[in-house]
Amino acid sequence: MGHIIALSGGVGGAKLAFGLSKVLPPEDLSVIVNTGDDFEHFGLPISPDIDTLLYTLSELNDPGKGWGRADETWSFLETMKALGGEAWFMLGDRDLALHVFRKTLLNAGMTLTEAVAVLSERLGVRQTVLPMSNDPVQTMLDTDQGLLSFQHYFVRERTKPKVKSVSFSSSDAATLSTEVRDVFARGDLDGVVVCPSNPFLSIDPLLAVPGFQALLKGTLAPVIAVSPIVGGQAIKGPTAKMMEELGLELSAMTVAEKYKEFLDGFVLDEVDAGLEEEVVSLGFPVATFQTVMKTEEDRTQLARACLGFLKEISASQAP
Amino acid sequence: MGHIIALSGGVGGAKLAFGLSKVLPPEDLSVIVNTGDDFEHFGLPISPDIDTLLYTLSELNDPGKGWGRADETWSFLETMKALGGEAWFMLGDRDLALHVFRKTLLNAGMTLTEAVAVLSERLGVRQTVLPMSNDPVQTMLDTDQGLLSFQHYFVRERTKPKVKSVSFSSSDAATLSTEVRDVFARGDLDGVVVCPSNPFLSIDPLLAVPGFQALLKGTLAPVIAVSPIVGGQAIKGPTAKMMEELGLELSAMTVAEKYKEFLDGFVLDEVDAGLEEEVVSLGFPVATFQTVMKTEEDRTQLARACLGFLKEISASQAP
Repeated sequence: MGHIIALSGGVGGAKLAFGLSKVLPPEDLSVIVNTGDDFEHFGLPISPDIDTLLYTLSELNDPGKGWGRADETWSFLETMKALGGEAWFMLGDRDLALHVFRKTLLNAGMTLTEAVAVLSERLGVRQTVLPMSNDPVQTMLDTDQGLLSFQHYFVRERTKPKVKSVSFSSSDAATLSTEVRDVFARGDLDGVVVCPSNPFLSIDPLLAVPGFQALLKGTLAPVIAVSPIVGGQAIKGPTAKMMEELGLELSAMTVAEKYKEFLDGFVLDEVDAGLEEEVVSLGFPVATFQTVMKTEEDRTQLARACLGFLKEISASQAP
Repeated sequence: MGHIIALSGGVGGAKLAFGLSKVLPPEDLSVIVNTGDDFEHFGLPISPDIDTLLYTLSELNDPGKGWGRADETWSFLETMKALGGEAWFMLGDRDLALHVFRKTLLNAGMTLTEAVAVLSERLGVRQTVLPMSNDPVQTMLDTDQGLLSFQHYFVRERTKPKVKSVSFSSSDAATLSTEVRDVFARGDLDGVVVCPSNPFLSIDPLLAVPGFQALLKGTLAPVIAVSPIVGGQAIKGPTAKMMEELGLELSAMTVAEKYKEFLDGFVLDEVDAGLEEEVVSLGFPVATFQTVMKTEEDRTQLARACLGFLKEISASQAP
């Protein structure tokens, strides 16, 4: 197999990216990651999804919590709280070092992509982790409590506000990085996997970067997506609540339709086998796998299945 | 007794300030602190001497190490080291919260004095801790390894470079804060105590702020100093090594002479009783106390002795 690109948000997507990292040589996997949730906190640039990928791929992550580091301590946050400072964002002492170090790299003139490459190397991540863009794109939620940035909606307000619409500020001005263009231009690119991340909060920001959808439509490699909706329920996070609020049907079909312009295949969970015919009617093949990833084995198994599906699609498309 | 001002650098001075805090009502003690060692680290403003005072007066300090907090953890620094970032400055996780919080206060438009007042309140320090100035004054050491800032000389280079001279960058532009002026203008001011801090690195920066020496000379309250040189040796830190390199005699007499323009009294350690006559020849009374402060009792005892000496001087000056 040649090179594989995975598109990912945070925790949900990182599970499949982790599976892929276990079944592919490290140089054959690039993960392009949502930066729409990035924000500044205490003057530090924080990239929650990038960091989840870095911690997951380096296996420094806390598998219990699903985010952050396993060997984390909380003295900074405890003290900040005692001082009366902002303490709504769970900033661990070790995690904080990553943010401060990233800031020194950015201050030295590196792009976010270059800084993430340094962090990857220092953390021992041998796969390529690419921010979707070096330019700021901020996911904004118009809610019944006003316009909120993702972190304010998700962490500070605990997804309680009712979402009316999602937009991406500055996405018009954002450009594709050389590194993202280059990985799509690789002659050995054998497939793109859209991980089971929230389509509206984690994948849409990537699609909002001008030129990104054209890369997905233009690539000769097959593009598949794994549904984050299983049995009419979202695996985790605010996906289900948000889809309802946006008046969308809570079904894998909604996701397949959303992505149909650039998909060459769609992965349903086994429990959604009944939707196969409906999804196939969109014009691409469908595979049904066990997509709920509870164990490391689930992750590698789904990764292998996705790679097999990509090969099948390539074989069927061959002249 | 009315109000007392203590002038202090870091650890050595903080010991006597602590003693004074134990024998005076909190509203009757103001400590004016050296900020010549202040620097930016990872973009955060760090005030080592101010923080030593805050931790000492709040009793959050680590009495073993002499600096920092007692209940400190080091995950941030450990991780920064692993990432390959700067790790020469011992930044604890809890200490870091203080620096980050101070930065948010300064960014919100507070002066350093106002920010320190907020930090004092949050840490439960009821005495007044005043930076010597709100303007940056940086202690610079001209050494055989080039011009070094205090932290680079003291922490990074561990005082190894040979000092040729000490200067204070930007001190010409620094101004006295309203708060420093006001405390000297108090009608109930009953004395000023120059703590046994390094005269060249901790007290000289205060004296370099235009107008500061005039406050000391002009006040009607008696000004005394406690010698940081005991038995021809410096109690701690680089004082002795530096004085030798600067060609100065390692004697309490050198300190008394240095301060003579504004002194109304000088405190020698008991072991230096032999110097009494020589110091008295400078034109002010001399007291000999046990000035080496190993225990809390040593600190309060020296504080009481200093207050008694101030009273004696006042009584002798009364018309």
